[in-house]
Amino acid sequence: MRRHNGLDLAAWSAAHLARIEAALSRWVSLEASANSEHGAPAALIAAMRYAVLDGGKRLRPLLVLAATEAASSPHPDALPAGEGAADEAALRAACAVELIHAYSLVHDDMPCMDNDVLRRGRPTVHVKFGAASALLAGDALQALAFELLTPEHGMPAGQQTALCRLLARAAGSAGMAGGQAIDLASVGLALTESELREMHRLKTGALLQASVMMGVACGKASSQARAALKTYGAAIGLAFQVVDDILDVTADSVTLGKTPGKDADQHKPTYVSLLGLERSSAYAQELLDQALAALAQSGLPNTQALQGLARLVVKRAN
Amino acid sequence: MRRHNGLDLAAWSAAHLARIEAALSRWVSLEASANSEHGAPAALIAAMRYAVLDGGKRLRPLLVLAATEAASSPHPDALPAGEGAADEAALRAACAVELIHAYSLVHDDMPCMDNDVLRRGRPTVHVKFGAASALLAGDALQALAFELLTPEHGMPAGQQTALCRLLARAAGSAGMAGGQAIDLASVGLALTESELREMHRLKTGALLQASVMMGVACGKASSQARAALKTYGAAIGLAFQVVDDILDVTADSVTLGKTPGKDADQHKPTYVSLLGLERSSAYAQELLDQALAALAQSGLPNTQALQGLARLVVKRAN
Repeated sequence: MRRHNGLDLAAWSAAHLARIEAALSRWVSLEASANSEHGAPAALIAAMRYAVLDGGKRLRPLLVLAATEAASSPHPDALPAGEGAADEAALRAACAVELIHAYSLVHDDMPCMDNDVLRRGRPTVHVKFGAASALLAGDALQALAFELLTPEHGMPAGQQTALCRLLARAAGSAGMAGGQAIDLASVGLALTESELREMHRLKTGALLQASVMMGVACGKASSQARAALKTYGAAIGLAFQVVDDILDVTADSVTLGKTPGKDADQHKPTYVSLLGLERSSAYAQELLDQALAALAQSGLPNTQALQGLARLVVKRAN
Repeated sequence: MRRHNGLDLAAWSAAHLARIEAALSRWVSLEASANSEHGAPAALIAAMRYAVLDGGKRLRPLLVLAATEAASSPHPDALPAGEGAADEAALRAACAVELIHAYSLVHDDMPCMDNDVLRRGRPTVHVKFGAASALLAGDALQALAFELLTPEHGMPAGQQTALCRLLARAAGSAGMAGGQAIDLASVGLALTESELREMHRLKTGALLQASVMMGVACGKASSQARAALKTYGAAIGLAFQVVDDILDVTADSVTLGKTPGKDADQHKPTYVSLLGLERSSAYAQELLDQALAALAQSGLPNTQALQGLARLVVKRAN
């Protein structure tokens, strides 16, 4: 990660990642569950922790915190990395999004879906704990995401509801789950570019965009800034998938962290199969430009972290 | 259903059921999803509708509406059946609980869990649509439950958050999903009565009790009344499971709507295996008495529907 516009993204990320990891570990735990009226069974919590505390890149939580920073602070110099705007509400929002992402990976890996046995070099949850436990752990992680967003104290009710609404829509049938359903139905089919875009907009884009908008909901942006950040979220959401398709062809398994070439083997429609490598790369760059242009139009002074994350999404391995 | 204390429960239920079925059909639909920014895929919505609009008894939604009535109205005669206190918020709460219940049945029936091929005389969702679609439909139903509770207009934010909080806790690792995990781990084990009670308190009881408390959150009960209704909810939650265990032994498949004797065949611990039939029946009656006593102590004048539903739970087939 390089410096852009005076922000050291690596240092910014490291500071925020430490808070995110600590918060995830605290909230997905027996102790947290013991605070509720009935405690959760230890075996289920173990599977949930295994699913969540797995060395993920935490792109979505970082987007939440970066968007909160952008939408909150009038002066870029006012916030030392890892402090300030990323307050309790933003941290809850960041972790809630990650729990939804984590549950979707657990369910996605299951035998009835992609039947993946490895993720980030470790056995997947169903391999380690059995399919039934994987199913329940995913279900419980989704519920926990909404529990995190509705604490009894410390967050205004209006903020809680805005966050729940954004997350529920992004996760559900008109978001992530809907995109997965389209994906499921489109194996072996020739999709048009607009059909492919619609699939990814739901499957990956909705939750990435929601991450940005949940960050915005933790700040206090103008409606102009809000609209600009929404455009930013849509652009990086799509860029993420285009780059994913490129990496599936170009990267080795170490860089990728999963088996490359899998999409092509499964006859899944991808940007590379549709546009070719060169046009796909150009498209990813174009989406990055759109994202950065939206940030410039937002009128917000403190968008350096969002800029850095957008570059990171597009440049991650090429 | 017989008349008790001047309320015709059959008429009361029929009027409310009509509203519940219409609302479920309206909210689990392509049209509802088309109101969100991206539409959901038709195939996923079809699986979700199949899972939800299946002729269930709607005990949980009825509990929500009955508890709302009890917690709202000072005069039992003020509310004709099917109108009044069961306003938009209560109807959303009622449907949200049912969506969580419906998703749990879909996932429960899957091959990696109970592997049931029939429910209410129809092929289960995974038999009809495939396991991957069943998984996604369940996931999307859970998200939709929280979406229903967070409309942009028409419900105070504080009420939305109270409802989301109750539902998330009841559905998650310290509630329904946790109870299912204990159930999974306890097949073939000899549980003590307190371990068995704890399992059912989470697995079935938490969502039934949450139904009551979500109804309360849609009304305006005193803290005394609230505590009494919580006791009522715990008692009927447990009674439900005790009666379920009794019916698994005594009922035929037509009455039961599923294969009887299955628990015993699977060496699952049940109240009947632990206490015997006679003491189990006595325990169910005792829990009914506790539930009715709690209603009497609530100081609320309009608890007839809650009384009737408690009797219905315990007397449903014996």
